[in-house]
Amino acid sequence: MNSFGQLFRVTVFGESHGPAIGAVIDGCPAGFELNSEAIQEMLDRRRPGGNAVGTARNEADQIEILSGLSNGMTTGSPIAFIIRNRDTRSQDYKSIKEVFRPSHADFTYEAKYGLREQSGGGRSSARLTAPLVAAGAIAKQLLASKNIHCYAYITAIGDTRWETPIEWTTDEKTALAHLANTNWQSAKIPCPNESAQHAMQNCIEDIAQGGDTIGGEISFYACGMPAGLGAPLANKLSAQLAHAMSSINAVHGFEFGSGFAGTSMKGSAHNDVFTAIDETQARTASNYSGGLQGGISNGMPIYGKVAFKPISSIRTPQQMLNKDNQLIEKTIEGRHDACPVPRAVPIVEAHLALTLLDAYLQNRLSKW
Amino acid sequence: MNSFGQLFRVTVFGESHGPAIGAVIDGCPAGFELNSEAIQEMLDRRRPGGNAVGTARNEADQIEILSGLSNGMTTGSPIAFIIRNRDTRSQDYKSIKEVFRPSHADFTYEAKYGLREQSGGGRSSARLTAPLVAAGAIAKQLLASKNIHCYAYITAIGDTRWETPIEWTTDEKTALAHLANTNWQSAKIPCPNESAQHAMQNCIEDIAQGGDTIGGEISFYACGMPAGLGAPLANKLSAQLAHAMSSINAVHGFEFGSGFAGTSMKGSAHNDVFTAIDETQARTASNYSGGLQGGISNGMPIYGKVAFKPISSIRTPQQMLNKDNQLIEKTIEGRHDACPVPRAVPIVEAHLALTLLDAYLQNRLSKW
Amino acid sequence: MNSFGQLFRVTVFGESHGPAIGAVIDGCPAGFELNSEAIQEMLDRRRPGGNAVGTARNEADQIEILSGLSNGMTTGSPIAFIIRNRDTRSQDYKSIKEVFRPSHADFTYEAKYGLREQSGGGRSSARLTAPLVAAGAIAKQLLASKNIHCYAYITAIGDTRWETPIEWTTDEKTALAHLANTNWQSAKIPCPNESAQHAMQNCIEDIAQGGDTIGGEISFYACGMPAGLGAPLANKLSAQLAHAMSSINAVHGFEFGSGFAGTSMKGSAHNDVFTAIDETQARTASNYSGGLQGGISNGMPIYGKVAFKPISSIRTPQQMLNKDNQLIEKTIEGRHDACPVPRAVPIVEAHLALTLLDAYLQNRLSKW
Amino acid sequence: MNSFGQLFRVTVFGESHGPAIGAVIDGCPAGFELNSEAIQEMLDRRRPGGNAVGTARNEADQIEILSGLSNGMTTGSPIAFIIRNRDTRSQDYKSIKEVFRPSHADFTYEAKYGLREQSGGGRSSARLTAPLVAAGAIAKQLLASKNIHCYAYITAIGDTRWETPIEWTTDEKTALAHLANTNWQSAKIPCPNESAQHAMQNCIEDIAQGGDTIGGEISFYACGMPAGLGAPLANKLSAQLAHAMSSINAVHGFEFGSGFAGTSMKGSAHNDVFTAIDETQARTASNYSGGLQGGISNGMPIYGKVAFKPISSIRTPQQMLNKDNQLIEKTIEGRHDACPVPRAVPIVEAHLALTLLDAYLQNRLSKW
Repeated sequence: MNSFGQLFRVTVFGESHGPAIGAVIDGCPAGFELNSEAIQEMLDRRRPGGNAVGTARNEADQIEILSGLSNGMTTGSPIAFIIRNRDTRSQDYKSIKEVFRPSHADFTYEAKYGLREQSGGGRSSARLTAPLVAAGAIAKQLLASKNIHCYAYITAIGDTRWETPIEWTTDEKTALAHLANTNWQSAKIPCPNESAQHAMQNCIEDIAQGGDTIGGEISFYACGMPAGLGAPLANKLSAQLAHAMSSINAVHGFEFGSGFAGTSMKGSAHNDVFTAIDETQARTASNYSGGLQGGISNGMPIYGKVAFKPISSIRTPQQMLNKDNQLIEKTIEGRHDACPVPRAVPIVEAHLALTLLDAYLQNRLSKW
Repeated sequence: MNSFGQLFRVTVFGESHGPAIGAVIDGCPAGFELNSEAIQEMLDRRRPGGNAVGTARNEADQIEILSGLSNGMTTGSPIAFIIRNRDTRSQDYKSIKEVFRPSHADFTYEAKYGLREQSGGGRSSARLTAPLVAAGAIAKQLLASKNIHCYAYITAIGDTRWETPIEWTTDEKTALAHLANTNWQSAKIPCPNESAQHAMQNCIEDIAQGGDTIGGEISFYACGMPAGLGAPLANKLSAQLAHAMSSINAVHGFEFGSGFAGTSMKGSAHNDVFTAIDETQARTASNYSGGLQGGISNGMPIYGKVAFKPISSIRTPQQMLNKDNQLIEKTIEGRHDACPVPRAVPIVEAHLALTLLDAYLQNRLSKW
Repeated sequence: MNSFGQLFRVTVFGESHGPAIGAVIDGCPAGFELNSEAIQEMLDRRRPGGNAVGTARNEADQIEILSGLSNGMTTGSPIAFIIRNRDTRSQDYKSIKEVFRPSHADFTYEAKYGLREQSGGGRSSARLTAPLVAAGAIAKQLLASKNIHCYAYITAIGDTRWETPIEWTTDEKTALAHLANTNWQSAKIPCPNESAQHAMQNCIEDIAQGGDTIGGEISFYACGMPAGLGAPLANKLSAQLAHAMSSINAVHGFEFGSGFAGTSMKGSAHNDVFTAIDETQARTASNYSGGLQGGISNGMPIYGKVAFKPISSIRTPQQMLNKDNQLIEKTIEGRHDACPVPRAVPIVEAHLALTLLDAYLQNRLSKW
Repeated sequence: MNSFGQLFRVTVFGESHGPAIGAVIDGCPAGFELNSEAIQEMLDRRRPGGNAVGTARNEADQIEILSGLSNGMTTGSPIAFIIRNRDTRSQDYKSIKEVFRPSHADFTYEAKYGLREQSGGGRSSARLTAPLVAAGAIAKQLLASKNIHCYAYITAIGDTRWETPIEWTTDEKTALAHLANTNWQSAKIPCPNESAQHAMQNCIEDIAQGGDTIGGEISFYACGMPAGLGAPLANKLSAQLAHAMSSINAVHGFEFGSGFAGTSMKGSAHNDVFTAIDETQARTASNYSGGLQGGISNGMPIYGKVAFKPISSIRTPQQMLNKDNQLIEKTIEGRHDACPVPRAVPIVEAHLALTLLDAYLQNRLSKW
C-alpha cells in the first residue's frame, strides 16, 4: 500500500545504508521511447554535490534500469531500477544509536516497528527520494511528449524570499521565458532569479556557519495541461498533489493557487473570469484557482508552494533522551545539509510530474 | 478508486439533486457498539441551518443505515447508509445551465465527463460532504473508545483570527479544558472562544450584506494518540492528512505543526526536545513537529490548519462565458453560504478522524 | 478491499435480513445511456421464482438507482443502487442460532467476527448476489455496445450433463444461433437445449423429493472480444475470471478452455494454430486456449466452466454441534433451493461481464 | 495494479532476457528473523536442473536481497530482491521473431502492447515465477512460525495419476507423516510417493522423446490454519486462491475441496459434520469443504488441485502464421520443458503461502 499513484504506481524500496535503493514503476504504458540520460541528469540535480550548501556525502547515484524497456522503448512491463549505495559510513551513526535525536524519526520508528535501523535513518532518510526523482524524470518525459511541462524552484530560504511574478499564473509564455532555459536548475540555489540565488545562498551559509539549519519554500508550476485531470472527492488533483508534496521529508505545508492568502480574499476578487473556452482548455483572466476548479484541471497553469521546516540535524550540542530516559547533551555527527530546500527542488518537480501523469492516465477512463 | 482510506475505506455516492446521497464503509471491524444518535448529531452540525450564516436550503439529513450492524453492533460487513435529498429546487439552476460560472466546476466537469449535471453542481456540490461527516462520526466513536479525540474549530474568517494558545500543542489538559465541553460546536461560528465567535460572525454578516463571500481557516487537533500511526513515504500520516483535508471543497492549503511559519525558523529553535518516552508515547518540550516525526505519530497532539478560499457563488453580477463563448453579465441564483468555513468544521473533524482511524488499523500490521 | 474489479469497481453491501442490500459501482465512464429495464430483467432471472426448482422466498427485487445517472446517461459518478428486503422471516432462523450447521458459514463467521448475524446467513447469504447481478447487467450493456456478448448456461445438474458442441469454441456464429435468442434464459433450467432442460429438471425434482440437494456446472461463453484484454501475472484475464467465479457461493472449481481435461493432452494436439490475424483479433483452427494466451485475450471466444457443490441446507435431519459442543440431531428449517445452479446462471454471467469490462477499461492504459 | 496480495503485496518485475528479474514485497511486518538460505533452497527447487525433465537453461538463480532487512530481521520496509539473468541466449529467439507461435503469447502481447519483446517471451516467460517463489519462501517462513504449513506436490502427469489418500483431508498427522520429511521435494518429480514418481517420469520421458509435451496436475495442501482466514464475497479465501493459482503460466483449472467431483454429490453426503469446535479451530468428520466454509477457513486442512495444460513449445514442426499472414511450417528452437508441472510445484506452494499470509494479516483487522 506504500506506493505513489494509482495507475502509474511507484513503489520505492531501500534504506540509506543498505546495498541499494530503487523503485518499481507499475503501469507505464508501452511504446514510449525513454531518454535514460535525462533520468540521470535529474538524479544528478538531487545528488549531494559536496558544495557549500550540500552534504559531504558523495554518491555517484548511477541508475541501473533492470526491466521494462526493450531497445529503449517502454514495453508495458514494470520498470524496475536500482541505485547502489556506495559511500555508507555507518560508524557515523553508532554514537546516536542509544539516543533519541530531537525531531528525528528515531523514536517513532522504534515505536512503530519495534526496532531501529542500524544506521543512517533507514527508510526515513532523504536518500530514499532518489528513486522518486528517477521515477519523476520518467513521468516528466511522458508528459513533455504531450506538451505538459513541470517545474519547481526555490522561492524562500528562511525569510529571504523571491516571489514569482503573478503574471506567470495566467501567461504561460512569460513563465516559460524564465523557466524553459533550465540553466538555473543546476545552480546551487535552483531559482530562476540570480540575485535571489545569491541572497538565499548567503542566508544558508550564515546559518551553516552557526552550526544551525533553516527551512524554506519551493514553488511548483505546471503548464500545457489539458482540462479534465483530477476527479471529485478523493481524486481531486489538489488532494493528490497535497498528498504527494506532503510525503516529502521535512514538508510541513502545502498550498496551491491563492493558498493561505486566499482565505482573506472576497469571492468577487477571487473568482477567475473565463475569457475563452474550447473543448480541451479554458483561459481565465486571473488564476487564483491555480488551474484547478472542483479539483479538476481547467487548462490554466497549476501552481503552488511547499513549506519545508529546518533540518533537525544541527551541529551544535542538544539535549537528547537516551534509552534509559535520561536527558544528556550531545552533538549529532554525520553529513547533513544546513537547509533541506536546494536538494528538494527535483523532488518537488518529480512529485508534480508523477501526480499529473497519474491523473492524465486516469482521465483516459472518464468517458465511454 | 474514488474512496477515502485504505483499510477503513469510505466510498461516497450521490449528487446534490438526485434521490439520495450516501456512502459505504468497507473495513469497519466487527464488535463495536455504534451510537447512531451521535452520527445524526454530527450530521446536524454540518446541516444548513437557515441561520444568518448558512444557506436557506433546508434538509433534514436523516441518515438511514442499511447494513453492517446487528443489534447496533458492527458485524465486519460494509456499513452502507443513505440520506434522502428532499429540498431539491432544480429550477434554480436552469438559468445557469448555459453559462460557465467563474471558479465553479462547470467547465472542468464538462471537459472531463462530456456532460454537465442538470442541476446543483452534481457531485461537486458541498452536499456530498454529508456522507463523509457521517462516516467520520463513526470513525470518531471508534477512536474515542481508544481515548483518541478529534476536534476542529474555526481560527479565521477573512482577516478576523483567533489563534489557539501555543500551550495546547504540548499540554493536552489545557486544550481539552476548552475543547471537551463541546457546546461551542453548535454555535453559528464553531470556535471555542466566544468573543472570537462574535467578531467572526460580524465579519461574515458584513460580507453577506455586500452580496460577497469570504474565506477562512479551520484548525484541527487530535490527542490521546499512541505513537506509531503513519508510515514512511506514501503513507506518512501528514501526507494522508494533507490528502484528506485538501479533498474538501474550497480548500487551497494545508499545514501541520509549525507549518508555513516553520520555514523561517532555525533548527535549534524548531527541534522538539524529548522529555519522556515510554513504549507507546513520547512527550516533548515543544511541539513544532505537530505530533508527527518522519510522518509517524509520536504521541503528542497532532494539530494543523486548513485554508478555505471564498465561495465562488456571489450574489452580485459577474462576467461569465456562455456556451457560445460570449461574455455576458449575470447574477447567480440559488442558495449559497457567504463563507464555506462554519459548515466545514465537522467535515474537517470527520476527515481527521477517518485518517487517524485508517492509520490506527494499518498500525496493527506493523509488527509480526 | 472487498470490492470486485479495479477500474469498474463494485462494492456490495447488505445482509439478507437487513433493510436493504445494494452496491456502489465506482469507475463507470460517463456518457453511456443505460437501459434500466434490462437491469431489472436480469435481476428477475436471479430471483427465487416460487417454482419447483426455486426457494419459496418471494422478493420483488425492485432496484432503485440512487446516483450516477442524469437523464438515463451515466455521469462518471458512482452508480449506487439499493434493493429493499421485504420478505424477511427471521423467525425461521431462530432455531438454528444455537447450532453450527454442517458446511455452513456459521462457525467460520463467528470465529472471524466474534459474533453471528441474527438470521439468514447475514452477508454469506446468496441474496447478496442480487446486487452483483444488477452490476453485471450494467457491465453487459456497456460491453454489448462494443459488440462483446456474455452468456452463461447450465451444462450439468449432478450427473445429468449437456455438453456444448465443441464448434462453439471456434465458430461464434454457430454459438450465437443457439444463445442469442435468449428465450431459454427464462426457463426453469437455463440451458439452450430443451431436452437437457427436462432431464435436469427431473434430476432436481427427484433430489428435492428426497429432501436432499445436488450440485452442478455452469458454462460461460463470451465472444466479440478484441485481442489484448488481460495482462501478465496478477492481471491475467484467466486469473481474474477464476477469482470472480470462485467468489460465488457454493463454487468449488473453475476451468477455462481445455480445463482439467487439457492436463492429459499432448502439446501437438492442444496447440491452436492461427489461421488469420489482424490488429484487433486472431482466428485459430482449434480453441483449447479458451480465447486466452498468456492470460490475454486473442479475440477467440472465451469459455469455461464453474463447479457448484450441493447446497448444505438439506431438509432431512443432520448431526450438528451446538454451542455447548454437543452433537444433536436437527432439521434445518427455512426456504432453500434443492440445487444452487439454476439461479446462479445470471450470477456467472454477471461476473463474466464485470471481469471483461474491467479488463476492457484496463486495456485503455496499455499503450502511450 | 499488477501485484499479488493486498497487505503482503508482491510486485514482480523483469523479463526473461533482461539484466535481472526480481520483486518488491510491500507490507511484510517488522521483527521476523528471516532464514535467507531457505529462500535460496526453495528457489533451487524451481530452477531448471539440466536433468531429463527440465530445460537445458542453466541459471544459478542467486538471490540478492537489497532492502527490508537489518541483521537478518525484517524492518517493516519493503523487501526488494533481484536475481541476475546470466544465461540469456537471445539468438535462439531470433528465428521466431517473425512468426506467431501457436498457443504462445506472441500475438496477444503484440496486440496489447503494440510491440514484441525481443526475445524469450519477455514478461510471459516462466522465468518470472522465480521472484514469486522467493516471495513465497518468505511467506512460508512467516506462516511456519505460526504453525501453518504449506505443501504442493504432483498428482498427475498426463493420465498417470496418484491420488492423495482421502484421510489426509481430515487427519493432518497422517498427511504430515508423508509430507513433512521433504526429501521428496527435491526429486525430479516432486511427489511424496516414489512409485508414482517413477511412473510419471517415464511418462514425461516418453513424451519428450516424441518431441511433444504433456500437461498434469499439482495438488496443494495447507494445515495448522486458524479459523477465520478469508472474508465474504471478493475476499473469499477460495477466490483468492483461485486467482493466485490461475495466474501461473499454463494453468487452465482450479478446484478445492470436493472440486468438480462435488458437483454430482448430494448435500447429505457432502456436508461436513462438526465433531469439535473451539474458538480458533473446528474439526469435521469429513472435509469436502476443503477447509473453507463461506470462503473462510474453519481450521481443517485446505486442499485442492491445479490443472496445467501442456507446454506449447513442442520440438516437432508446426503450422504458424508469419507477419505477412502466411501459414508456414516451422520448428521452435530454444530450451523448453516437456512438461510444465515438475518445476511448477514450488510455484504452487509459493502462491499458497502468499495467499494464506495475506489472509492471515487481513484477519488482524476483523475485530475491534
